[in-house]
Amino acid sequence: MTLRFGVVGTGAIGKEHINRITNKLSGGKVIAVTDVNQESAKQAVEAYQLDAVIYPDDKALIADPNVDVVLVSSWGPAHEETVVAAVEAGKYVFCEKPLATTAAGCLRIVEAEMKQGKKLVQVGFMRRYDSGYIQLKQAIEGNEIGEPLMIRAAHRNPQVGESYTTDMAVTDTLIHEIDVLHWLIDDDYKSVQVHFPRKTKYSHANLQDPQLFTITTNRGIVISVEVFVNCQYGYDIQCEVIGDEGIVKLPEFQSVVLRKNQKLSSTILNDWKYRFMDAYNVEIQDFIDSITKDGKPNGPTSWDGYIAAVTSDACVKAQQTGEEELIHLQERPAFYSEKGLQII
Amino acid sequence: MTLRFGVVGTGAIGKEHINRITNKLSGGKVIAVTDVNQESAKQAVEAYQLDAVIYPDDKALIADPNVDVVLVSSWGPAHEETVVAAVEAGKYVFCEKPLATTAAGCLRIVEAEMKQGKKLVQVGFMRRYDSGYIQLKQAIEGNEIGEPLMIRAAHRNPQVGESYTTDMAVTDTLIHEIDVLHWLIDDDYKSVQVHFPRKTKYSHANLQDPQLFTITTNRGIVISVEVFVNCQYGYDIQCEVIGDEGIVKLPEFQSVVLRKNQKLSSTILNDWKYRFMDAYNVEIQDFIDSITKDGKPNGPTSWDGYIAAVTSDACVKAQQTGEEELIHLQERPAFYSEKGLQII
Amino acid sequence: MTLRFGVVGTGAIGKEHINRITNKLSGGKVIAVTDVNQESAKQAVEAYQLDAVIYPDDKALIADPNVDVVLVSSWGPAHEETVVAAVEAGKYVFCEKPLATTAAGCLRIVEAEMKQGKKLVQVGFMRRYDSGYIQLKQAIEGNEIGEPLMIRAAHRNPQVGESYTTDMAVTDTLIHEIDVLHWLIDDDYKSVQVHFPRKTKYSHANLQDPQLFTITTNRGIVISVEVFVNCQYGYDIQCEVIGDEGIVKLPEFQSVVLRKNQKLSSTILNDWKYRFMDAYNVEIQDFIDSITKDGKPNGPTSWDGYIAAVTSDACVKAQQTGEEELIHLQERPAFYSEKGLQII
Amino acid sequence: MTLRFGVVGTGAIGKEHINRITNKLSGGKVIAVTDVNQESAKQAVEAYQLDAVIYPDDKALIADPNVDVVLVSSWGPAHEETVVAAVEAGKYVFCEKPLATTAAGCLRIVEAEMKQGKKLVQVGFMRRYDSGYIQLKQAIEGNEIGEPLMIRAAHRNPQVGESYTTDMAVTDTLIHEIDVLHWLIDDDYKSVQVHFPRKTKYSHANLQDPQLFTITTNRGIVISVEVFVNCQYGYDIQCEVIGDEGIVKLPEFQSVVLRKNQKLSSTILNDWKYRFMDAYNVEIQDFIDSITKDGKPNGPTSWDGYIAAVTSDACVKAQQTGEEELIHLQERPAFYSEKGLQII
Ligand SMILES: [Mg+2]
Ligand SMILES: [Mg+2]
Ligand SMILES: [Mg+2]
Ligand SMILES: [Mg+2]
Repeated sequence: MTLRFGVVGTGAIGKEHINRITNKLSGGKVIAVTDVNQESAKQAVEAYQLDAVIYPDDKALIADPNVDVVLVSSWGPAHEETVVAAVEAGKYVFCEKPLATTAAGCLRIVEAEMKQGKKLVQVGFMRRYDSGYIQLKQAIEGNEIGEPLMIRAAHRNPQVGESYTTDMAVTDTLIHEIDVLHWLIDDDYKSVQVHFPRKTKYSHANLQDPQLFTITTNRGIVISVEVFVNCQYGYDIQCEVIGDEGIVKLPEFQSVVLRKNQKLSSTILNDWKYRFMDAYNVEIQDFIDSITKDGKPNGPTSWDGYIAAVTSDACVKAQQTGEEELIHLQERPAFYSEKGLQII
Repeated sequence: MTLRFGVVGTGAIGKEHINRITNKLSGGKVIAVTDVNQESAKQAVEAYQLDAVIYPDDKALIADPNVDVVLVSSWGPAHEETVVAAVEAGKYVFCEKPLATTAAGCLRIVEAEMKQGKKLVQVGFMRRYDSGYIQLKQAIEGNEIGEPLMIRAAHRNPQVGESYTTDMAVTDTLIHEIDVLHWLIDDDYKSVQVHFPRKTKYSHANLQDPQLFTITTNRGIVISVEVFVNCQYGYDIQCEVIGDEGIVKLPEFQSVVLRKNQKLSSTILNDWKYRFMDAYNVEIQDFIDSITKDGKPNGPTSWDGYIAAVTSDACVKAQQTGEEELIHLQERPAFYSEKGLQII
Repeated sequence: MTLRFGVVGTGAIGKEHINRITNKLSGGKVIAVTDVNQESAKQAVEAYQLDAVIYPDDKALIADPNVDVVLVSSWGPAHEETVVAAVEAGKYVFCEKPLATTAAGCLRIVEAEMKQGKKLVQVGFMRRYDSGYIQLKQAIEGNEIGEPLMIRAAHRNPQVGESYTTDMAVTDTLIHEIDVLHWLIDDDYKSVQVHFPRKTKYSHANLQDPQLFTITTNRGIVISVEVFVNCQYGYDIQCEVIGDEGIVKLPEFQSVVLRKNQKLSSTILNDWKYRFMDAYNVEIQDFIDSITKDGKPNGPTSWDGYIAAVTSDACVKAQQTGEEELIHLQERPAFYSEKGLQII
Repeated sequence: MTLRFGVVGTGAIGKEHINRITNKLSGGKVIAVTDVNQESAKQAVEAYQLDAVIYPDDKALIADPNVDVVLVSSWGPAHEETVVAAVEAGKYVFCEKPLATTAAGCLRIVEAEMKQGKKLVQVGFMRRYDSGYIQLKQAIEGNEIGEPLMIRAAHRNPQVGESYTTDMAVTDTLIHEIDVLHWLIDDDYKSVQVHFPRKTKYSHANLQDPQLFTITTNRGIVISVEVFVNCQYGYDIQCEVIGDEGIVKLPEFQSVVLRKNQKLSSTILNDWKYRFMDAYNVEIQDFIDSITKDGKPNGPTSWDGYIAAVTSDACVKAQQTGEEELIHLQERPAFYSEKGLQII
């Protein structure tokens, strides 16, 4: 059985997913595409030699009875409408982050999905599929470090452009930690506070960089995350979970070790794409396999998208107030209580 | 376009390749199988829900005009005959090691392939597709370490059964270094000598373990490889290339880092399958892609299979004589002079 | 020339210093001792076969004209009185932390020393003499990482007794970071805030453990220090300085690397004494050498002792209020503006 | 009690020992010096402000009844005569390597010492006092890795001058491994063979560089040592002991860890002096303490000096013949059977 994808949004990320499904993974096929820029949609079909229909808009694509899955990789503000429509049509959805740009929008998707009576939607938070994070989760759930008490993490990029503003440190960057960390410790967030260290000389007028977020959870875990998007030296993701019996930490990215010029060195990546390349492939293959075998996706849910939206809002508010801000989540519906992503 | 595979030999490795082509990779499909044990062939078809013909023998499978590629994962002594027949039928071949059990057998395959006038055969040496070895090769070819002068390597398994004898340290184990190291330094072997250290208490009556091989190349590079197949602690592959400007070394296998019980530790694998899991996938995907795009495979050739056979023979002789043994290769035909595996 | 020490306080630390001066270092000699427990003083003289006078109290010891240096390793609350008396007598002083138990007490020592017109006092903060911290300082001052923006540190002990209370996480533990970090970045502290993560099950009724301190400096550097004194796994000191060009981090404590039982591991210390053993020796040898050569000690000054006291008070207050607390230092006298500890 | 040293040979190493004894360590004092260059002896006395007699030659120095220990740091060929004379006068001796330039010369010292009826001589092999090697020995003797089967080591220098010839790779460089490795595994050497890899372009006309030594022991341990004295990148000492239960390896030299310019790096030393600086200090302090407490030195003995000479001769012969050369040692006298250097 082959899962038939309709892709909404054929920009850079959309094209990568098309390439992945077409040339790297097994069990999926792109049979329909659309983009607000129809020329872009045509180019994608040609570039990957797809046997795919080009639709004028998402509505038409969703209406195609051959489309099993709607992959949403359009502009963020357009996500909500496409996802709601696809869900109401009973289609599976793989939606790149954000699920919706507001918490209310996420809740509308949650409601639409619950009305369908089964899980249809997966949000594109790929870190849960990274082998390092999976090993962290195995260590925690295997009780290697006892009860988690703290997390210390860092998200560093070499540099960002002038259009990247202070709030984007949350919505574009910290958002990945927001998703992966609550999954890692199976807990909900309670509050957040931000400290702004002195600004690096490599930052811009509208960007406070670096930033230090202190997030607490319902169980009392304190999470300290550094976001530093002009760190110059490379793309570097750090995560260390401190438990009452031990500490477990993400490995450094794998590189050969060089002895030269009085230095023992390994390479740090410069580009986030390579860091999570495998995770992206595993993510989509798991999405295909889960639907094919179990009739539902197994990854981050609409509810996880809602958590990300609410937490993200509180983090941005905390940037503005300098105070500790509470993170208010609605009660989790039983519908979303089932555990996702069984670790292999 | 989909490459249609006929699989000869549905044992453990054959099944893994079937699963890989069917459920993990893109662009290939298993449409025919055979095995000396027909029951095994049937089970494979059922287990992976293949839409495949079960043939009584390799001859019949090769004769199927729908078969584009013959994947040979039968018992080693049967390889030569199947490969020659497939080549003579103009089929592509992916043959697990050994290509043939004798150097003469390898040469017969070489001749058959040259007679066809194009490269058809790839031998299943997967290490060339491991990201660590690829990084080593990039470092060498990018002149990071200057001219290679020495290699120090180790191939360690936790333990082997009683049927594993001294010569198998060459034919089953060292064989992987034999292939990957001459590729790494783009040189040919000249001689080999073996030292037997005192035997580990975990070895068996018919197995000298560990062993230390000293191999020289035409350019004068000295390669020291330890083979230790009852090392107890894990599966561990080490390789360090010493150049006149610097030294480059394989990374340790990636694992989270744990602080616990006064130890800072990471995990060492216990099973070779996990160590090269990615390499196996990359290997077969590259085989499919190269044939699809370029009309020929891009990996280890029949000539590489011949080099492995000749070197392996000399290593076994050196185990027996305790002396330095020469490694006599015929002159490389121009047909095989083209460089394989362009590093991405 | 031999520097003649009078030791006030012959408990565990006093005895270690006596042993160090007598049997490990060069240029110093213990010629007088005293302790509130005279029996302890006698035992020290016998144990180390000292040719030393036993005095009934610090006053008498200070009055001995043969005593060049008063080494103060008595009970903390007694330090101030001994140090002031020694300074007023024109003697050099090496005083274990704390210099005095209050900021006001430290200022009285500062005044007494300034009245003498030359530096006489060194406080026993040994980390500045640790080769790791010295390398960090060299990296910062050599502009390896550009301008420091953040520090992330951890101070972990395997366990503490029931008498160790929440405030002692500051006064006994964080106090070392308080001293070494302002020296490292050559900056003064401005504020501190404390987060209490959920408590480890290994803690006691009167101890919140772990704790996370967020300290800011005048230049805007944000320092995040974890104190975790029942971490179980070992004694572990971490310090990472994040600059606008790069990041530099303390090395792990040096240990052989073991491959065994599927683990690649090195040893973590269990006892703080071994971690800074070399630093203690270097500290006292530098104290002896500086006085012998330059006529004044070169390490942490009375003013550094005052900084530690004020910062420590603010940290304890922050533990109690949960709020950000300001750290108010008096203006630094020109007398203390000279740079100490030239790095070798 | 203070041990009184007479120093024979006030070149670079002699001066370092004088400085060490005078300014860094405890319990020793230099009271006499001599050098074939009397001016050099005078300069040493002045530079370190010694209260020491300058003697015209070693005979006169040895005859001084105030001299307890003769420290021999003269030109290698002069060692034997000085050591024999000192031993015959009943003096303790600390002799830099080599003990004598020939095995026969070493045996003459052995005989002279045995005639005195007690151990008087220590040879200056400092690696046994390095904390890394001590940890290796503790791991082996604590049965952490089971029975040793192999050692893989490397001794690398950044570069050497034109006067350094092929044989000096043994007599100046490998000599340190020769001493420390038999101590590490408590075994005697049996044979040696040398392989010459292609020569680095940084070597000279009279120097084959690098070289690979394969040494076997009586118990069958195979030792592979790379000597590479123009490796360019730094001074680097590697040692890994492979046992039947696990493997233990020297730590890298301790350095802070830097993230910068897409590299994660630590520093490799460029100068051997820093690598074993601590070991030199521990070595001489242990020599002083052992004589003071036990009446005899505790480090490498005259017999160890003899082992080094015999092994060194065989290694040089193996360089010349290209064959496996036997290492013939006389039977060890009971006098030298007592274990030295108890690990702390
Ligand atoms: Mg994603
Ligand atoms: Mg293979
Ligand atoms: Mg101290
Ligand atoms: Mg020495």
